[in-house]
Amino acid sequence: MALLYKADPQRGQLWQQMFALHAPDIEFRQWPDIGNPADIQYLAAWQAPDDLATLLPNLKALFAISAGVDQLNLPSLPAHLPVARMLDPGITQGMCEYASFAVLSLHRDMLRYRQQQQTGTWQAHALTPASQRRVGIMGLGQQGCAILESLKPFGFQLSGWARSAHGLAGVRSFHGQDQLPAFLAQCDILICLLPLTEQTQGILAHEVFAQLPRGAALINMGRGGHLVEPDLLEALDSGQLSGAVLDVLQEEPAKGEHPFWHHPQILLTPHIAAMTQPESAFTVLLENIRRHQRGETLLGQIDRQSGY
Amino acid sequence: MALLYKADPQRGQLWQQMFALHAPDIEFRQWPDIGNPADIQYLAAWQAPDDLATLLPNLKALFAISAGVDQLNLPSLPAHLPVARMLDPGITQGMCEYASFAVLSLHRDMLRYRQQQQTGTWQAHALTPASQRRVGIMGLGQQGCAILESLKPFGFQLSGWARSAHGLAGVRSFHGQDQLPAFLAQCDILICLLPLTEQTQGILAHEVFAQLPRGAALINMGRGGHLVEPDLLEALDSGQLSGAVLDVLQEEPAKGEHPFWHHPQILLTPHIAAMTQPESAFTVLLENIRRHQRGETLLGQIDRQSGY
Repeated sequence: MALLYKADPQRGQLWQQMFALHAPDIEFRQWPDIGNPADIQYLAAWQAPDDLATLLPNLKALFAISAGVDQLNLPSLPAHLPVARMLDPGITQGMCEYASFAVLSLHRDMLRYRQQQQTGTWQAHALTPASQRRVGIMGLGQQGCAILESLKPFGFQLSGWARSAHGLAGVRSFHGQDQLPAFLAQCDILICLLPLTEQTQGILAHEVFAQLPRGAALINMGRGGHLVEPDLLEALDSGQLSGAVLDVLQEEPAKGEHPFWHHPQILLTPHIAAMTQPESAFTVLLENIRRHQRGETLLGQIDRQSGY
Repeated sequence: MALLYKADPQRGQLWQQMFALHAPDIEFRQWPDIGNPADIQYLAAWQAPDDLATLLPNLKALFAISAGVDQLNLPSLPAHLPVARMLDPGITQGMCEYASFAVLSLHRDMLRYRQQQQTGTWQAHALTPASQRRVGIMGLGQQGCAILESLKPFGFQLSGWARSAHGLAGVRSFHGQDQLPAFLAQCDILICLLPLTEQTQGILAHEVFAQLPRGAALINMGRGGHLVEPDLLEALDSGQLSGAVLDVLQEEPAKGEHPFWHHPQILLTPHIAAMTQPESAFTVLLENIRRHQRGETLLGQIDRQSGY
C-alpha cells in the first residue's frame, strides 16, 4: 500500500523521512516516480494529475495539502473519491496572525503613516476607539471563526456572514443573500475568507463595495478570484474605500507593472498569510489516513456539491 | 475653587463642557486665562508653568495629562505637591494595539514585504511559528503588563524585565541590572516601555543591542530619549539587528533629513501608539480630583524619588 505525494519536493523529502519513522507501513512515493500505479491508495497533492481515474485505478482518497481546494478541478475527479482539505492548525494560526496584523494596520491608519514615512511627514491623526470600529468577516468556516476569536480581545464590534446561519457568541451573525446588504452596511473593515466557488467568484466588486459605509477598508485573505481588481481601484479612487490589505491576486506571482504594487492605499503581500507547516501538516495527514483505514469520515472532507 | 488646564486647547474646550455638566462645583479655567491665582487648587497639564510655587500659591495637586511625566521638570516642583500620571484606559488600549501591530509586523517579516512591494517583488519567505518567537518587554508597569496579556493569545514565548521583581503568569520574569544580560540574550523582539529617567536615558544603545540574539528586532514605544539613534543605524547595518518599529524620536517632530525616514528596516510612526482619549481621560481626572477631596491617595501618583 502506497501514498503518492505530488507537491513541493522539499516538503516531500521531509515527509518521506517522517513517514519512514512514524508510519513505516505506508510506502511514500514522490511524483513523478509513481512506481506501480496499482499500489497507490492515497494521493496527497496540491493539484491532481490529469486523468486520475485511469492513472491510479485503486485510489481511495485524495488529501489536498491546502486549506482551499479551488485549484483542484473537482468535476473531473471520480464522483466516489473522498477529497479532504488540509486542516493544519499551523494554517489557522498563520491566518489569525495575518488577520490581526491587517485589521490593526487599517484600524490604526498604518497605510497613511507608511505614506507619511515615505514623504518625511510627521503628523498624527485622530484615533478611533476599537469599540467604535466594526469588523465583518465573509466566510465562517474554521478559519473565520478562529479569526473572530483572535480579534475579540481588542474590543472591535464583530460580525460575520455566511451562506447558512451560524451562532457565534459576541458576534453579530448574518446569513444568506437576503442579509448580505445589512451585513455590508455595518462593516468598516471587511475581511474576505470565503472559499472560491462559482457563487463567490468575483464577489468583491463594485456592487459589494457600494454597500459598505463610505471610507470602509477591505482585507482579502481568500483567493485572488474573489476580487474584481479594476473595481477596487475605482472604489479607492472615488473614496468609497479608504484602503485594502491583499494577500492574493487574480494572477500570481503579480507582474511587474501590476497597478497594486505602487498604490499608496494598498498593502500587498505575496500569498503568505498562512503557509502549511510541514510538521503539523504531517500529523494531520497521517491521522486522516488512519481514519480512512478505520472506515471513519475524513477530517475536512469536502462536499462535492458545494465545492468546499 | 478652580482647576487650571494647560494643554491642547481643543481638548480644553471639550473638558470645559464636561466639567460644567458633571462637576459644576469645579470652576474650569484654561491657560493662559488663569484669573485669580489664589483660587486655583488643581492643575491639569502637559508641562507645568515656570515658577509654579509662586504663580499658584494654593495649588494642591498636579495631574499630568500623559502616561509618562518626563516632560515635567520634577525637581523644580514643590516637594510637597502630589503629582499623578494619567492612567487613561484609552492609553493602555492604544499601547496594546500598537504593540500587537508592531510585534506581528516584525514576526511576519512585514518590513521585508513592504520593501518587496516597493520594488515589485513577489517572493514568500519561511514563516517562524509564534511558539518559537521570543518577545521581551523592558518595563513592567500597567502598560507593559497589559501588552503581555494582549500578546499571550498569539502563543509567543513572553518575558519581561524591570528594576524590581514581578511575578506574571506565563511570562519569564527578570529583574535588576544583574539579570539584564540573561533577559536580552533571549529576546528575538525587544519592546521598550520603560519610563524615561536618568537611569534609562540612552539605554537602547550598542551594549544592549550586542547582547540580543543576532538578527533580533526592536520596538521603541517608550521615549525617544531611550534610544541612541546612531547605534541603531550601526546595528542594522551590521546585521546585529534586523529591523525596528519606532514611535518616538530624540527630536520630535523629526526633521526632513532624518536618516530613519527612508530606512528600509525601520517602520517609523509619529508618536501615535496611544493618544489620551478626551472622554475617558476626563473620567479619570475627575475621579482623581474627588479622591484628593476625600483625602485619598491619587491614582497614578508618582514617587518623586524614582521619577515614575
